Amino acid sequence: MPEASQPTFATVSDVLTPKPAGPGTVHGVGLGPGAADLLSVRADRLVRGARHVAYFRKAGRAGRARRIVDGMLREDVIEFAMEYPVTTEIALDDPRYNQQLSAFYASCIEHLHAITARGEDVVVLCEGDPFFYGSFMHLYSRLQGLVPVCVVPGITGMSGAWTVSGAPITWGDDTLTVLMATSSEEVLTRRIRDTDALVVMKVGRNLPKLRRAVAAAGREHEAWLVEYATMAEERVTRLVDVDKVTPYFSILLIHGQGRRP
Amino acid sequence: MPEASQPTFATVSDVLTPKPAGPGTVHGVGLGPGAADLLSVRADRLVRGARHVAYFRKAGRAGRARRIVDGMLREDVIEFAMEYPVTTEIALDDPRYNQQLSAFYASCIEHLHAITARGEDVVVLCEGDPFFYGSFMHLYSRLQGLVPVCVVPGITGMSGAWTVSGAPITWGDDTLTVLMATSSEEVLTRRIRDTDALVVMKVGRNLPKLRRAVAAAGREHEAWLVEYATMAEERVTRLVDVDKVTPYFSILLIHGQGRRP
Repeated sequence: MPEASQPTFATVSDVLTPKPAGPGTVHGVGLGPGAADLLSVRADRLVRGARHVAYFRKAGRAGRARRIVDGMLREDVIEFAMEYPVTTEIALDDPRYNQQLSAFYASCIEHLHAITARGEDVVVLCEGDPFFYGSFMHLYSRLQGLVPVCVVPGITGMSGAWTVSGAPITWGDDTLTVLMATSSEEVLTRRIRDTDALVVMKVGRNLPKLRRAVAAAGREHEAWLVEYATMAEERVTRLVDVDKVTPYFSILLIHGQGRRP
Repeated sequence: MPEASQPTFATVSDVLTPKPAGPGTVHGVGLGPGAADLLSVRADRLVRGARHVAYFRKAGRAGRARRIVDGMLREDVIEFAMEYPVTTEIALDDPRYNQQLSAFYASCIEHLHAITARGEDVVVLCEGDPFFYGSFMHLYSRLQGLVPVCVVPGITGMSGAWTVSGAPITWGDDTLTVLMATSSEEVLTRRIRDTDALVVMKVGRNLPKLRRAVAAAGREHEAWLVEYATMAEERVTRLVDVDKVTPYFSILLIHGQGRRP
């Protein structure tokens, strides 16, 4: 990157120069799988230059997205931690789950809108890729028509996982199926049986159910579990050797075995 | 990035200092979907610092991976263009296809091995992510045990495509299926019918067959075609409005419509 594009700290002239008229922009920025140098150059520039950053986290936790950018933020950054009112305490099909989350997203939007209404930009930190099973999309859909929004794609967590597994996920014409471990055991079994390559995300406490589904599909000896891909705690284990419940962000892989000259 | 990590041109001391003993490394580096600032910080550093780069291309073409890094390479870079002996001239199931490609990959390996045997590193430029339907994996499998290999994941072409489509590809528990348009019409139809979200890659001359499969699955009004995502020529079109054969690297999308509070 040329020197001129390096983000800098706010200077006196920044403070004295009025911002141009018009609202600020919300940037939904994909941070990639976890390693700080796997942000894109565009994301790196936006994160280092941001006066306002926002990110989701579970109450009482540092927040996974926030952890990725440790040491990268401006000294005068203003942080907005969006704490989920509920994660796994209420079942997904309980109406209170949707009600509580809807109210929560509405309050986040109000806050982000207030910042952009003053003409200032906000960078929303998103682990992985914002449009791939991320919470950012719940903000994105609500911000349409209200505030300018830009999205920066990121390296997905699954790309991080298959890279550190040391083998390509797909060859030739292989079909890849991506599932959420929160799906029912029947859905998981049927789809695991009927694909060449497989990624299952959000394994965590769904591991016992997922393991039964993989076994029922007859594929337990092909499956790998990847935890904390590209991070210091990174671990790649055969599913048959896994002996404990894994973090929410662990990923199960079955590599395709398709055509290869 | 700190100043010290910026790649620099070779200096006199580089030339006079003998390289450490041991072979060089082959780096398979994901370049992302096309925009130069969507390389990861790690990939950007490796590409700008490389003395040797290698990349696949069709004979007579500039090469898509090479185009992404235009203006980023060292002045004294040594380029190795690996030109496919065959792309679509021979059917995939013709034995000559595999024979010609095998001989081609073997000659690439010989060349890369000769560079690393002198203790020098090579960066292999890979569009998208190297372990996701890329040609690099054919080098990777042949380099095992011969040469140290490092892989840098990249933002996939499909992430670029759904980002510029302006809508998330998956919500909640949506299942995502990724298909190659080179698959048979029956396979395409069955799988397009049986998924929430869909990505079909390598559309190109398979467009008429793919269009029939999407229609047979009853989903033609949900489908979008994305060409040259994140590049200057970028184009997003509803499938029903597409009127001509599209580039090989165009991607078809159907967005999931899953749970959203």
